[in-house]
Amino acid sequence: MSRKVSDSTIRRLSLYLRILEAMERKGGGTVSSVDLAAAADTTAAQVRKDLSLFGSFGKRGLGYQVADLARQVRDILGLSRRWRVALVGAGRIGSALFEYESFRRRGFEIVTVLDNDASKVGQRWGEVEVQDTADLDRVLRDADVEVAILTVPAGAAQEIAEQVVGAGIRGILNFAPAQLRVPDGVFVQDVNMVMELEALSFDLTNRVASAGRSTE
Amino acid sequence: MSRKVSDSTIRRLSLYLRILEAMERKGGGTVSSVDLAAAADTTAAQVRKDLSLFGSFGKRGLGYQVADLARQVRDILGLSRRWRVALVGAGRIGSALFEYESFRRRGFEIVTVLDNDASKVGQRWGEVEVQDTADLDRVLRDADVEVAILTVPAGAAQEIAEQVVGAGIRGILNFAPAQLRVPDGVFVQDVNMVMELEALSFDLTNRVASAGRSTE
Repeated sequence: MSRKVSDSTIRRLSLYLRILEAMERKGGGTVSSVDLAAAADTTAAQVRKDLSLFGSFGKRGLGYQVADLARQVRDILGLSRRWRVALVGAGRIGSALFEYESFRRRGFEIVTVLDNDASKVGQRWGEVEVQDTADLDRVLRDADVEVAILTVPAGAAQEIAEQVVGAGIRGILNFAPAQLRVPDGVFVQDVNMVMELEALSFDLTNRVASAGRSTE
Repeated sequence: MSRKVSDSTIRRLSLYLRILEAMERKGGGTVSSVDLAAAADTTAAQVRKDLSLFGSFGKRGLGYQVADLARQVRDILGLSRRWRVALVGAGRIGSALFEYESFRRRGFEIVTVLDNDASKVGQRWGEVEVQDTADLDRVLRDADVEVAILTVPAGAAQEIAEQVVGAGIRGILNFAPAQLRVPDGVFVQDVNMVMELEALSFDLTNRVASAGRSTE
């Protein structure tokens, strides 16, 4: 099954969840695939196809119970639990992410922070103390970490990624502008803010004012 | 032409550019589509298809001149120039992005910063002084801004986006966890770090260790 699930389906599931949770805050009730599709800027057929990959939800003609579907999508995305996260790289971006409430709210808890800068090691960040990346393996194992956020320079990213994988981590959120090579069964999500700006630059340079973006 | 260019093609062009620039730093010379594909983790056919959308590059059997192709891809992406950027939202993420060298290095220059927090308005950030979002329209026009980076709370994002568009901006890099609705001819790139973590959570929850991710 999971082999058939595309990045774009996962992206839409995250979006559906946001829409459903907003509906929950407004009282819940039921929602049709048509209304969910409209809010997600897609088609009802796409909504039904995405959800059908994970079982059958809702009743034909009756739509979906908002609260039930939200819970089911949280389960599908693995968000009905907390994740223990390590932040590697205590620079500006790292400290901004450490304070980023949306991570914690979604169940991603930064339980340890590491850096190789002696002036940062030992700093107290809220509940946690910045650890030395020289001790990365022990620190990650002791903290029982499952996900690592890398906010290290591009030149250090591959080596850090290998150390993180060596410590048993299978999920990496990579902010370094570097293409990480990891073994099968280790998952990397890249946040490349420069590439996003480059896509904007392409749009502003090449798109005619009325042209949408093809998303093959 | 531009209608046929997909997000994934643009993403790969950014990646090719990084690879080509790394090759340039190592002396340049020529590169085959096979080698470029290997470095970009794709196929030679894909490389040729992506580039063919923008003209004919390289000589059959001789490959590409690294420096020439890098310059041509920069032109395609609209990166052979500088872009004047406004940062709206002077919080932690905003200040981290303001200091983010990779933006400037790629030609994205943050020439003005705005916030609605009276305690931040008037602060000097390097060369720029934090302006009041109440003056957004005038500030963006005076600064001749073309791209806006939004690091505002989700609840404020849509209204700010509309003001930014009203000031003539056609490119928005959006860090707010909100789906912005903008007119045709205005381009939005979202950086949703929580969604990236949710995709990791899905992978760690659903993928068998050996399964790759389908990218339809």
